[in-house]
Amino acid sequence: MSEQPSAADEIMDGVYRALRAHGYADVTMQDIADECSKSKSLLHYHYDTKEDLLVAFLDYVITDSEARIRAHADDPPAERLAGFVGWFVFEADAVDREAFHIALLELRTQGPFNERIREQLVRSDRLLRGTVADILESGIEAGTFREVDVEETAALVVATLDGARTRQITLIGGTDEGSADSESGGEGDAPADGLPEPTYTRRVAEAALRRIVEPILAEGVALPSLEAGIDSMTRDDDAE
Amino acid sequence: MSEQPSAADEIMDGVYRALRAHGYADVTMQDIADECSKSKSLLHYHYDTKEDLLVAFLDYVITDSEARIRAHADDPPAERLAGFVGWFVFEADAVDREAFHIALLELRTQGPFNERIREQLVRSDRLLRGTVADILESGIEAGTFREVDVEETAALVVATLDGARTRQITLIGGTDEGSADSESGGEGDAPADGLPEPTYTRRVAEAALRRIVEPILAEGVALPSLEAGIDSMTRDDDAE
Repeated sequence: MSEQPSAADEIMDGVYRALRAHGYADVTMQDIADECSKSKSLLHYHYDTKEDLLVAFLDYVITDSEARIRAHADDPPAERLAGFVGWFVFEADAVDREAFHIALLELRTQGPFNERIREQLVRSDRLLRGTVADILESGIEAGTFREVDVEETAALVVATLDGARTRQITLIGGTDEGSADSESGGEGDAPADGLPEPTYTRRVAEAALRRIVEPILAEGVALPSLEAGIDSMTRDDDAE
Repeated sequence: MSEQPSAADEIMDGVYRALRAHGYADVTMQDIADECSKSKSLLHYHYDTKEDLLVAFLDYVITDSEARIRAHADDPPAERLAGFVGWFVFEADAVDREAFHIALLELRTQGPFNERIREQLVRSDRLLRGTVADILESGIEAGTFREVDVEETAALVVATLDGARTRQITLIGGTDEGSADSESGGEGDAPADGLPEPTYTRRVAEAALRRIVEPILAEGVALPSLEAGIDSMTRDDDAE
C-alpha cells in the first residue's frame, strides 16, 4: 500500500490477497504466508491462530477506513455525503474488490459466534453510522442540510448502501461473469440506450442521493453528482 | 408447517432447523437427518449431495415466499408496501429467525462460486424487486402513489431492508446477547424514555416508511403504520 511497506503492512496485504483468492472459510495460514512471501512460522510468531490474524486484519481495514474518512473531514458536507455514498459503488469489472467483499461478508457471518470478530463489526458499524451522523450534524450547522433526525438518517443510509453491495456481490458470478451479469444486472429489460446496465450499487447509490439526500438539502443547495462522490473517495486506492 | 406434512416438507423443516443449529458451512447430511428423524440414506436417496439438498431448500423457501406474497396480492397497495417493509423487521428476541438468516447469509456468500445457488439468489432478487415494483405499479394505477421510477424505488427498498437485516443479524451475539445488544442496539445513548432500543431492522423500516414511502404517496393517502405491516406479513408463520 505505501512505497516501503512495513512487515505488518506486507502481512495485511497478504491476508487481503489470500482472502480474495480463497475466501474466509477456506483460507489457511499457508495461503497467507504464500501471498506475502513470509514463512508460515513467522506468521505464527506474530499471530497464534488464523482467527488472531483475521481479527488483526479487520482492525487494519477499519483503521484504514477511519483514515480515509478523516482525510475528507474538511470537505463541504454535501460533497462528503456524496463521497460516502460513492464509496460503496462497485463497477461490474471490480472483480478483486468483489472477491474481497465476499470474503468480508463470510467473515461477518461469524459475528454472532465470535465475540472478537463481532467487536470489530460493531466498531465498523459505529464508524460508518457515526461518519454519516457527523456529516449531517456539521451540514445542519453550516446550513447545508435541513434539520433531520441524524441517527435515523445515518442508519438508513448505511443499511441501504450495505444492502446494495451485498446484493451485487452475491448475485454476480465469479467464474461465468458474462451470463451472471445479464442475469443479475437489472429487471430483465435490455437497456434501450445501448449503455451497459448500471450495477446494483450504482443504481441504489443514485437512488439514495436523489431520494434520501436531496430531500434533506437546504433550499438552494445543489446535490453533488454521484460521479464526483465516487472520484473523491474511491479512486486513490481500490483496496477498501 | 402444515398439519400433516409431506416427507418433503419434513425434510425441508429439518434443513431449516439444522441450518439454524449448525450454520451453512458446518451442517452435515447427518445433522439434517437427525433434525427431521429420517435416515441419512433416505436423504441421499432423494438428494445426491448436501449441495443438492440446500439448493432444493432455497427453492422451497423462495416458493414459500412467493405464496405468502401472492396471499396479499389483493391488499390495498399502501398496506401491501407496509407489509413488505414489515416483513423484514426482526425483534431482538427472534433468535431462531436470526440464526436462520445468518445461515442464509452464509449460503449467499456462495453465490459467486456456485451457479445453482446463484440462480436461486437471482430468482429471490427478482421476486423481491418484482413484488415491490408490482405494488408500486398497481398503486400508481389506483391513485395511491405518485408517478415514480418503479424499478429504482424497488431496488432502493429491497437493498435498504436487506442491508438492515444483514447488519442486525451480524452485529448481535448468539451466545452473550445481553452485552451484544447493548453494544449494537444503537448509537451509544441510553433511551431516554426507558423503552428498549428499537432493533436495526425496526429503526430502518420506520425510516424507510417515512423517508422513502411517504413522499411517494398521492395527496391525501395516509401512511399505514409499520405495526400493521408487521402484523399482516409476519405473524402467521415465523419461518421466513
